[in-house]
Amino acid sequence: MGERALYAVVPAGGSGTRLWPLSRRDAPKFLHALAGGDRSLLQGTVDRVAPLVPPERTFVVTGTAHRDAVAAQLPELPSGNVVAEPAARNSAPAIGLAAAVVAERDPDAVLGSFAADHVVPDADAFRAVLRDAVAAAERGYLVTIGIMPTYAATGFGWIQRGDPLPDAPGERVNEFTEKPPAELAQRYLDSGRSLWNASMFVWRVGVFLAELARQLPALHDGLTRIAKAWDGPDRDAVLREAWATLPAATVDDGVMVDAARRGRVAVVPGTFEWHDIGDWNGLAELLASGGDGNVDLGTAPRLSVDDTGTLVAADGGRLVATLGLRDVVVVDTPDAVLVVPRDRAQDVRRLVEELKRRGDDDHL
Amino acid sequence: MGERALYAVVPAGGSGTRLWPLSRRDAPKFLHALAGGDRSLLQGTVDRVAPLVPPERTFVVTGTAHRDAVAAQLPELPSGNVVAEPAARNSAPAIGLAAAVVAERDPDAVLGSFAADHVVPDADAFRAVLRDAVAAAERGYLVTIGIMPTYAATGFGWIQRGDPLPDAPGERVNEFTEKPPAELAQRYLDSGRSLWNASMFVWRVGVFLAELARQLPALHDGLTRIAKAWDGPDRDAVLREAWATLPAATVDDGVMVDAARRGRVAVVPGTFEWHDIGDWNGLAELLASGGDGNVDLGTAPRLSVDDTGTLVAADGGRLVATLGLRDVVVVDTPDAVLVVPRDRAQDVRRLVEELKRRGDDDHL
Repeated sequence: MGERALYAVVPAGGSGTRLWPLSRRDAPKFLHALAGGDRSLLQGTVDRVAPLVPPERTFVVTGTAHRDAVAAQLPELPSGNVVAEPAARNSAPAIGLAAAVVAERDPDAVLGSFAADHVVPDADAFRAVLRDAVAAAERGYLVTIGIMPTYAATGFGWIQRGDPLPDAPGERVNEFTEKPPAELAQRYLDSGRSLWNASMFVWRVGVFLAELARQLPALHDGLTRIAKAWDGPDRDAVLREAWATLPAATVDDGVMVDAARRGRVAVVPGTFEWHDIGDWNGLAELLASGGDGNVDLGTAPRLSVDDTGTLVAADGGRLVATLGLRDVVVVDTPDAVLVVPRDRAQDVRRLVEELKRRGDDDHL
Repeated sequence: MGERALYAVVPAGGSGTRLWPLSRRDAPKFLHALAGGDRSLLQGTVDRVAPLVPPERTFVVTGTAHRDAVAAQLPELPSGNVVAEPAARNSAPAIGLAAAVVAERDPDAVLGSFAADHVVPDADAFRAVLRDAVAAAERGYLVTIGIMPTYAATGFGWIQRGDPLPDAPGERVNEFTEKPPAELAQRYLDSGRSLWNASMFVWRVGVFLAELARQLPALHDGLTRIAKAWDGPDRDAVLREAWATLPAATVDDGVMVDAARRGRVAVVPGTFEWHDIGDWNGLAELLASGGDGNVDLGTAPRLSVDDTGTLVAADGGRLVATLGLRDVVVVDTPDAVLVVPRDRAQDVRRLVEELKRRGDDDHL
């Protein structure tokens, strides 16, 4: 690592409706200890970078509704480092705000952005890759950490790898490609030259803000105004006023796609185990171990006879008894029970949509 | 019907462990409205005979633990007609006690015995058959109402029909046979000359007590002693003291089998729909209607998408959400949740056994 200080921003958004009824509007998935143990996904994300990034250089950007819960889970962070977005505007405003605030304080800083809801079991391996990404970022590249693919995923965008960088670890990114159909995903996988895009970014704040200014000038102007007022008495007023004018955009489509075309983006292959827990089946796959492949989460009493491939999250305080189930998910919470076969786990969002349609705010 | 008064006894025993967690040690299945509507199986049984048997001639024999709950569900019965057995001794003592008490009051009475947990949707059809059974009983036969079989059941004993009675509706019983293996059950079904034994009996109390005296004299003596004290000040003391000496026996094996050999038993075919709700799958079969065959019981909110053949009993006050389930039972109660495929419903008793092994009295 070089001389520049490393900062981190953790965008903590998304509702995780496919993980209902554990994940709720008021308690989205990043607040839950879904990876096992007693640390939430958010805490795990901060823990993972903590040896390289002290708390005062770590920021979380989240929704207003979750600000207090985030601050309570991360008492080591200065309270000003938990930033509440007045409204969700997607990733470019959230990450851009952190970049602009950091740039005001430390224009030479390197900033990494890490989603709050990913699971990386081997933190040492993660940090070894992160160090390479930082080295490339220091050279002026917009760096992404691409995930080594383990199957022909159609649910992720992919990163097409180019030539090795001449002056740093990593390779040039030839192209960001969209979520592919199955056949194309298989070709990407077989090529050995494609990685999953996990929206994991590292860059010098000045380099990123310059790209924002070029591609999304209105966003850049608004963020700069907010950042200038950040450490003064008008922070909240300016944030509220300026935020309402910001365009919604993602870092991926709004910044990285065109920057890659101009040869400014590098990728470091993420040679670590990585999971994006999108739904209950994904969680079951992550946590399954042992001969019967059953996963038990939660603290309530359990009774299980002849089950295989089940995931039972018993958090409602009641006994959960299962018998003869095969590849079924049971989630018990204090006010709702879900039962769904693992191969229908993607469709749990349909239940949440139905609750919205009913106006059932109690269970959303 | 003849001149003799008709009495009814409803033996309300059995724990219904296969219907856990709705059916509990303290609230067995006959106390629940499992047939739909708001009347329990016990209430339904009493309702069914009520047009022929007034409350003061209706008795319920149940466990001490359930006496109060039974009395609360049947406020129309005189309180002395809800009899608490000091200990479970199987059906012969329970039904025999009612017979002995009735005989003290009305030696010419006819007594019918009807289990508390059977479902008979068409009460008129039932009473038409019962009237025939009473007519045969008045002629001095020990009468059973046999159920017209609808499949080759291996879970019931069978009744082999003989010649028509010369002097009353019904036929002689050639033999009571045990629960048969599948092949034999099929032969019984195909013969058209076999009926299911539902332990539904009608007889003159004197005729039944004479058989008891012949086959189970110790039981007869004990019951007679209790009955003589029944309307005096020593009822409870004599009941407690004498009950402890009674042999456990069933009416079927202990009385009817040998009586049939002696040509004293008649059967009236039960040409009405009849269900013994033994487990959750049986209940689902009973209640399923409509294209998707889903059954919803209970009063809690429900969310169901793409389910088929499910039975969901939502009695825990929580939302129960199911998606893509096929032939699965979900039972939610305030302190326990059960999820089991319908084809494993018989094995729910194994869960109850495990609870007993754990000493988990809260959930038994």
